[in-house]
Amino acid sequence: MSITLAAGALTPKEITVFLLALAVLLGTARLLGEIARRFGQPAVLGEILAGVLLGATVLANVYPPAYDYLFPKYLYDHASGEQVFYDKVDAETDEIIYEAVTDPETGELLYTESKGEPAPSLVLVGLDAFSVLCVCLLLLIAGLEVDLSIVTKQGKAAALVSITGMVVPLAFGCGLAFAVPTLIGYDPTSGKLVPFALFLGIAMSITALPVIAKVLMDLKMFRSDMGMLIMSSAMINDLLGWIGFAIVLSLILPPGESAIPLHFVIPATLVFVGLILTVGRWLADRAIPWVQAHSSFPGGILGFVFTVALLCAALTEWIGIHAIFGAFLAGVALGDSKHLKPQTRRTIEQIVTYIFAPIFFAGVALRVDFLNNFDVVAVVLVLVIAIAGKALGCYAGAKWAGMTKRESWAVGFGMSARGAMEIILGQIALNFGLITDKLFVAIVVMAIVTSVIAGPLMQKALGLKQGKRLLDVLGSKNFLGPLKAGTRDAAIRELSAHAAGVLGKDADTIGDAAIARERVVSTGLADGIAVPHARLATLDEPAVFIGISPPGIDFEAADGQPAEIICLLLTPEDDQRSQIELLRMVAEAFQERATRRSAVEAQGYTQFRAALSIGSAASEAH
Amino acid sequence: MSITLAAGALTPKEITVFLLALAVLLGTARLLGEIARRFGQPAVLGEILAGVLLGATVLANVYPPAYDYLFPKYLYDHASGEQVFYDKVDAETDEIIYEAVTDPETGELLYTESKGEPAPSLVLVGLDAFSVLCVCLLLLIAGLEVDLSIVTKQGKAAALVSITGMVVPLAFGCGLAFAVPTLIGYDPTSGKLVPFALFLGIAMSITALPVIAKVLMDLKMFRSDMGMLIMSSAMINDLLGWIGFAIVLSLILPPGESAIPLHFVIPATLVFVGLILTVGRWLADRAIPWVQAHSSFPGGILGFVFTVALLCAALTEWIGIHAIFGAFLAGVALGDSKHLKPQTRRTIEQIVTYIFAPIFFAGVALRVDFLNNFDVVAVVLVLVIAIAGKALGCYAGAKWAGMTKRESWAVGFGMSARGAMEIILGQIALNFGLITDKLFVAIVVMAIVTSVIAGPLMQKALGLKQGKRLLDVLGSKNFLGPLKAGTRDAAIRELSAHAAGVLGKDADTIGDAAIARERVVSTGLADGIAVPHARLATLDEPAVFIGISPPGIDFEAADGQPAEIICLLLTPEDDQRSQIELLRMVAEAFQERATRRSAVEAQGYTQFRAALSIGSAASEAH
Repeated sequence: MSITLAAGALTPKEITVFLLALAVLLGTARLLGEIARRFGQPAVLGEILAGVLLGATVLANVYPPAYDYLFPKYLYDHASGEQVFYDKVDAETDEIIYEAVTDPETGELLYTESKGEPAPSLVLVGLDAFSVLCVCLLLLIAGLEVDLSIVTKQGKAAALVSITGMVVPLAFGCGLAFAVPTLIGYDPTSGKLVPFALFLGIAMSITALPVIAKVLMDLKMFRSDMGMLIMSSAMINDLLGWIGFAIVLSLILPPGESAIPLHFVIPATLVFVGLILTVGRWLADRAIPWVQAHSSFPGGILGFVFTVALLCAALTEWIGIHAIFGAFLAGVALGDSKHLKPQTRRTIEQIVTYIFAPIFFAGVALRVDFLNNFDVVAVVLVLVIAIAGKALGCYAGAKWAGMTKRESWAVGFGMSARGAMEIILGQIALNFGLITDKLFVAIVVMAIVTSVIAGPLMQKALGLKQGKRLLDVLGSKNFLGPLKAGTRDAAIRELSAHAAGVLGKDADTIGDAAIARERVVSTGLADGIAVPHARLATLDEPAVFIGISPPGIDFEAADGQPAEIICLLLTPEDDQRSQIELLRMVAEAFQERATRRSAVEAQGYTQFRAALSIGSAASEAH
Repeated sequence: MSITLAAGALTPKEITVFLLALAVLLGTARLLGEIARRFGQPAVLGEILAGVLLGATVLANVYPPAYDYLFPKYLYDHASGEQVFYDKVDAETDEIIYEAVTDPETGELLYTESKGEPAPSLVLVGLDAFSVLCVCLLLLIAGLEVDLSIVTKQGKAAALVSITGMVVPLAFGCGLAFAVPTLIGYDPTSGKLVPFALFLGIAMSITALPVIAKVLMDLKMFRSDMGMLIMSSAMINDLLGWIGFAIVLSLILPPGESAIPLHFVIPATLVFVGLILTVGRWLADRAIPWVQAHSSFPGGILGFVFTVALLCAALTEWIGIHAIFGAFLAGVALGDSKHLKPQTRRTIEQIVTYIFAPIFFAGVALRVDFLNNFDVVAVVLVLVIAIAGKALGCYAGAKWAGMTKRESWAVGFGMSARGAMEIILGQIALNFGLITDKLFVAIVVMAIVTSVIAGPLMQKALGLKQGKRLLDVLGSKNFLGPLKAGTRDAAIRELSAHAAGVLGKDADTIGDAAIARERVVSTGLADGIAVPHARLATLDEPAVFIGISPPGIDFEAADGQPAEIICLLLTPEDDQRSQIELLRMVAEAFQERATRRSAVEAQGYTQFRAALSIGSAASEAH
């Protein structure tokens, strides 16, 4: 008994490898992405690292069979195991196109050589097609984040920052390419110096909207004036940058690939952009409520958003610029409508951010050997030019618009974050043979480094201190679970004894100090939270210890509610600031009723942590 | 200037077609799915119809160039446009495997023939790989819906119904295959009658959990005792059915495709099922809170669920049974944990149900010509046996478990819904060459028909009447928008005048009747809703007319709130029932505060409808 598979269908073995490859890419990328976040870094750093580990850089060298199994490059015949080659057939005569191989001695025709290009593995084709979809959806959500009304409100300042922040790095990038092309991996024989230089200039000038938005949110500056100025400058910047990139792509497109003549590509692009930002926006704003009115929710609107994004992506790819550009503009037009509900945006963003994006970024780094192609000179040159160009350009614009020196530097550093967008740009350029592995590695490193340092540099420029969350200081040793105590003093003694054990201090000293403090004014807050605290001369670091009491303990709170969550705060004697900081963290962590409920009901540290983690996500979403 | 693409990468033209094909499949499937729902039918009916329209049945015959463009079957060389064929190379000697072609007259070797199989289009490969992913995710959410605790609570009754409901259709299906194999499209030369008969038996015995859940929800019976009995019987049924299907697949697997020897496939399957339902569940229940505690929410848990599902899918495919089986069991194990938050389930379910599933089902019907392969005898035979087997089997079990005759028939008809699962089963069997297009078409028709009639038959058996929603009776003519009136009587007159125009009646008659009714007892309900009503001798059909009044009009409501939404209910004189029905619909439509807010703020009919539609989705989710 045997099977006959339908044409184009993957064999069971290919399905196994395809699913396993997706699982390994997603799992590793999410894991390292979370670890990166734990260290305060952007998730994309960990996701790319996953590709480096699983791909040509590490796995292919450390254990080649695993790499070849997961990401097979060529096609092998499913029954015989023999390698498969492409063999071309004349379209008109239907005959095979041969190359004659003759006997070198007799000159007689021996056979005809038709061994052509090796056929790519169907797994590889499947992964590539899927990653095209991933990157389009990634740009869709980047587009959804663009708020054109904010852009217009910021007016002059945003225009100035975005223009200087675009022109300076563009000039720096082009200059670098023309000055030392070979140092950064340009192949002089290719004859593509102009598009190469333009590409580098644009790669230097596009910012990373999602990374910048994330940095601003982390600094709690997203809704501030400076935050909005940075966001709107970045939006104008990206819009212009992507149009520029589309034009560069059209310059290197092979004949026959574009559906319209080459000299129409640029006008067609501009017409498309113009139409989608006017008619497209107008239509989207009318179509969305109609779709929501006449279809099931959220099925109708989700299907509508994805369909429009895919259609626009296909359209721009057909015009001869890249598909991601259409997806981005579709996002801008759709996201601009106030009728698109926050929960719809959230569903799309969550799935794309946490499923499609990790697979894409891990996949990006798979095929490139980051160690062998890591060229210190190229990396340093690209990095320095990228940061200097963007920071100086934006600084000049912000200063010009009348901001202070400190603020202008903050804008400059904030705008210098590149992240995901440059990597996408680089990957397309790499696929098209416009840049080499060496420059690609330099661009990826530059994108990651600028994303990582943007937040800290902004904080430094503004003299801010980043706000920690209770979660960040809460280890398993800091959580006691349900307290045995039924009274205030007993509860403080119980927590103090535990704290003393962990910190290696004397339990009575801690307990006495906390109880003495409690005599002054009771520390019962509203909503069942109590925060007994003590300052200790012998302590180096602030610490918090938490116990829960489902029946509740009276801490003389103003609202009369017994305390169910008791947080013992210990701080060094002379450190006024950290006590206030801890109080803020506790208040923030338990501000939602649902979080308090789950926290009190938690069985053990893990569930308690989960309650805080979900609560923190919920309050960010509000 | 030209480009060199990386190996396995799709060309711009292929990317265009790939994205366009996805957009067209998704858009058409969602559209027809919505239309099907509007007619009270399952969405999958519309989604399959999309594939019928876009595929071999309609588009390929009506306008072949469009079909060939969207879903190209073979690969053509990107530069020359010539067709590409596979050419095999000996794995050891690296030489091409030739077939000699000699001159028929002289016997001399002319050339060697190496034209092999035509290479499939990369677009087709990409779509196929994507649809593998789609179907795995579809089974993942089917698995998430299985609640093992409900299954165990139903105990004896569920066991009886599921066993008789499994054995009888299995016997009917096998019997049919052995009795008249050729009538239902069996190829006697294939020598696979035993797996063919087993497949048909299993195809008859698996139910469609998601369809049944939907039917029960629509009938508001999901949480009733009967609903839970049906759900738990269907779960046991599916678990056993999929194990059986996995075993049938292992019987027809080609040598070399399975990673483990054939006689180990069945034990390995049973071990895998046993492990995942015990150790796997236990692990999932501990891992989920840990993941939620130590990662960002919902990114961590989403990544975790997808990774586990893909890993299990790859594992079962590797064992030699199909990937969907692993995804389904992963869903059962993960979904069983109470730590998995409803919002996480909702996000996964929404994306899969509204994006992945429509693309999959439209894709399923693409390659099969439903008209030419529609064989009345085969369709009728499969349909009759499918309904009779399931209904009789389940009826017997339910009766045995002590249910009434009416209830037992309702259980039987409810369980006879097949839907998506049978189609997935059929597609795999078709891909493996186990069944022909003819039987596939019969199975698809059977799956759709049983899904469509299950709800109405259950209602009939129980003597129920399906509850309509306000949305279902609200056309654009029934909505006035903001009223000019500021008093109760003026508002009633204004609505009456509009109603009279629409219905062709006399405005004063309506107004007088409604105002007279208002004098008896005021119709102001709580929360700003008022329902003035009138019975009219000349009316044939009940009707509702709605106006809004953002400033509010006093309707003497008990809670003192002025009415902002005023619904004029008109019913025929002797129709007591329809007035109560309309009142229920109004109360239900506006029960959520958010819905009332958006409804009052609506600008025009479309936005008003959207407010009701979103509100209705929100209350179903609760």
